[in-house]
Amino acid sequence: MIIKKLLVANRGEIALRIMRTAREMGIRTVAIYSEADRHALHVRYADEAVCVGPAPSSESYLKADVIIDVCRKLQVDAIHPGYGFLSENANFAQQVRDAGLIFVGPSPESIEIMGSKLAAKAAVANYNIPMVPGTPAAITDRTEAKAISAQIGYPILIKASAGGGGKGMRIVEREADFDEQMDRAVSEAQSAFGDGSVFIEKYVTSPRHVEIQVLGDQHGNIIHLFERECSIQRRHQKVVEEAPSAILTPEIREAMGRAAVDVARACGYFGAGTVEFIVNDKLDFYFLEMNTRLQVEHPVTEQITGVDLVKQMIYIAEGKPLTIKQEDLQIKGHAVEIRVYAEDPANNFLPDVGTLDTYVRPQGNGVRVDDGFEQGMAIPIYYDPMIAKLITYGDSREEAIQKMIRAIDEYQISGVQTTLPFCRYVMEHEAFRSGQFDTGFVATYFTPDKLIPETDADESELAAVVAAYLIETTKPKAVGVAGKTTTSSRWKANRLA
Amino acid sequence: MIIKKLLVANRGEIALRIMRTAREMGIRTVAIYSEADRHALHVRYADEAVCVGPAPSSESYLKADVIIDVCRKLQVDAIHPGYGFLSENANFAQQVRDAGLIFVGPSPESIEIMGSKLAAKAAVANYNIPMVPGTPAAITDRTEAKAISAQIGYPILIKASAGGGGKGMRIVEREADFDEQMDRAVSEAQSAFGDGSVFIEKYVTSPRHVEIQVLGDQHGNIIHLFERECSIQRRHQKVVEEAPSAILTPEIREAMGRAAVDVARACGYFGAGTVEFIVNDKLDFYFLEMNTRLQVEHPVTEQITGVDLVKQMIYIAEGKPLTIKQEDLQIKGHAVEIRVYAEDPANNFLPDVGTLDTYVRPQGNGVRVDDGFEQGMAIPIYYDPMIAKLITYGDSREEAIQKMIRAIDEYQISGVQTTLPFCRYVMEHEAFRSGQFDTGFVATYFTPDKLIPETDADESELAAVVAAYLIETTKPKAVGVAGKTTTSSRWKANRLA
Repeated sequence: MIIKKLLVANRGEIALRIMRTAREMGIRTVAIYSEADRHALHVRYADEAVCVGPAPSSESYLKADVIIDVCRKLQVDAIHPGYGFLSENANFAQQVRDAGLIFVGPSPESIEIMGSKLAAKAAVANYNIPMVPGTPAAITDRTEAKAISAQIGYPILIKASAGGGGKGMRIVEREADFDEQMDRAVSEAQSAFGDGSVFIEKYVTSPRHVEIQVLGDQHGNIIHLFERECSIQRRHQKVVEEAPSAILTPEIREAMGRAAVDVARACGYFGAGTVEFIVNDKLDFYFLEMNTRLQVEHPVTEQITGVDLVKQMIYIAEGKPLTIKQEDLQIKGHAVEIRVYAEDPANNFLPDVGTLDTYVRPQGNGVRVDDGFEQGMAIPIYYDPMIAKLITYGDSREEAIQKMIRAIDEYQISGVQTTLPFCRYVMEHEAFRSGQFDTGFVATYFTPDKLIPETDADESELAAVVAAYLIETTKPKAVGVAGKTTTSSRWKANRLA
Repeated sequence: MIIKKLLVANRGEIALRIMRTAREMGIRTVAIYSEADRHALHVRYADEAVCVGPAPSSESYLKADVIIDVCRKLQVDAIHPGYGFLSENANFAQQVRDAGLIFVGPSPESIEIMGSKLAAKAAVANYNIPMVPGTPAAITDRTEAKAISAQIGYPILIKASAGGGGKGMRIVEREADFDEQMDRAVSEAQSAFGDGSVFIEKYVTSPRHVEIQVLGDQHGNIIHLFERECSIQRRHQKVVEEAPSAILTPEIREAMGRAAVDVARACGYFGAGTVEFIVNDKLDFYFLEMNTRLQVEHPVTEQITGVDLVKQMIYIAEGKPLTIKQEDLQIKGHAVEIRVYAEDPANNFLPDVGTLDTYVRPQGNGVRVDDGFEQGMAIPIYYDPMIAKLITYGDSREEAIQKMIRAIDEYQISGVQTTLPFCRYVMEHEAFRSGQFDTGFVATYFTPDKLIPETDADESELAAVVAAYLIETTKPKAVGVAGKTTTSSRWKANRLA
């Protein structure tokens, strides 16, 4: 079946991203929006747009019934959920199907399985997927637990079965500490969750987050499009991503790719999906979970493979067989993405909503900006404060990073604090440049005083004055496109504001 | 020698293009500008900028002495000439050398040789480069000329030796017409140039313009980066370019690449250069000339090879050996470039200078915009009226074209007429889509009435109204980012204005 009209059940950059590809494919687009997004770019970009309710997501972007009703009334064929909101909601996917519409994503069953850690584990059990070693369930026998720990090898992690957010979690470095830490974990778990049961898992040292992009069609063909590394995180959320990873060997890459395809096969997956792994400093990798949707960081994969993932998702949803073969895919160059959030890196990355008084995007060779804003727009307080994704790509990792630094310096944003200076700090940092970093990067290396970059602004201004004197003419004051001086100045102003 | 400070002896998009790469390489940049360009983006982007004189190029951008003087005073190491202006001026290249500066380009000798058709022909004589068959010099003996024509094969072209602009040029379709056309050609040449001497050349039917990008270092290594096709021209100037060509076979591509490397070798070339060929409908190719500089259309090559040509030019100028090997290069995907000129395609592509009242660039996956303007800027009457180069790239030619159409629809420019609607017409045209076109495309297929696109704007607006009625809410009026409706409307407004 051919999709002629697509509703994008999302907002911001990802709604625009999806509609751009739809338009390239000759598909008409329908936007939905909340009252707070009345003037948003995705609303203006779509062929048609419908307001679905007030600002809070629960009253608009999450209103499954209303959204399906819009589809009926506007003769929409298919819904693309983007990421977040309803994208991993199996009930919604089922409702869409029941309404006779195409859900541009996997089956409700696949979403369901991968949405539950237990079900996911059960599903992949026959596929020899490496999992973080540990006890299969809650510990009942302490002696047995100790034996298992010795077998796994220290350090190990004791985790509350009912846990989350690090509560009831203890690292045990050696067997001598086992009993003491176990007592503490059980007692913490008991007081935090009213349930003292705990299980044991190997503690992955120097962990890195590496994920594999997969594409499967409705005819059982599944391929992978290599990895993305997303280890640079703040508040356990990705902020810098890249493809390929700086550390994988071709052999590990192939093994991870095979494992990811197996995970997808284990749940009968079709559409675009991402299989997340944790990788240690010896390049052992363990399956974490599968995200059954398009990821925020998908552009880095598009840049190194040349594959338009949204286009493939639409083809797959139409029932077309994959035309890309695994053996035809190869990594071309290197891509880096940074997430430009309206957050203050000098203040624990707290959201800093406001109005984009200045907003000028970087341009040029090897630069892509996916965003949903323009100058003068306010960043709504109701949603994720991501302003843009800035993607750069080059022939090598070094070139992509150089382009990123140049692009960050060229990006002009005023009115809100952003993660740009933090990301620039990452790009310049020796640990990042050398590829020797893990998910602890921010905790290990970052403090707010790192944000003031070294600048040669004074020297530059002096030279300009000398030039002016000698040649009796001078450079107009920098406005508009940022020179290095302007950018550095802007950061200083930000830090002092 | 390492370049630490680079002066870009140019303006507009190419000055910005070069400075972006320089900045990525950690090289400080110096802009020069005329009084008319006081507020231009390249001036603001540079680390330092110096006014070199009044608006006319002859009094500013072509002032070799003044430019070299600026370099001395600001301790500049190297000059990148861009394209146009002083870029193919052998004297300037020599002056730069004599001043102890690095010219980011070939030697003055290479420029000199390729700047003269006769010298170029002589230089390549030993390399078995295919040239358009014809008499080597002016015809003295008509019987011999007739014999040569029969040998070349009709149709042939009789051209005035002193000629240009098509004067004194006659096509001869068959031998029976030879004498009559020869008489006319000689008489036309005599009256137009005061010199009746003529020569004979094979008439290339259905000619296409295909050029090969080459890179050579100062150590004798020369590689080619495949072809660009630039057959879509108006007023004998390129307006749509692509890489690779839609028609070359791998064998012809390789043969042309080898020929281009030989041409470069014949003149001891180093730097980035372009060897232009004319190709007929049987894929016979003939050497036309070599451009000894960066070309306007170089981005399509960058997109399909991943090579940053400006970076390579700088490395070569520094004396570094090429690190890219011919066998490592391969074509990845397809790229198309259109030149967005401030010209009125409905009025013989006459320049239409004015102010960019609206100027919003397209974005997204597979889109690159190289420009030198922002909203509110005036297009100076003194220079080439190119506003921007819009480049799109995708996995296939079809995908790149689809992205181009989408990007053109998304581009918002008001205040001047542009070549955007013409380029959109080309992208939609069956001859272009099928790859069956030649340099006669505009003459064969284009008339101004083709510019009003078929639009479903009315239908779209009706649907929006229905949606509004049904759901009691409506889409805000399109402003800012252009929907299809907005763009179509804009074209209509342009055509009626």
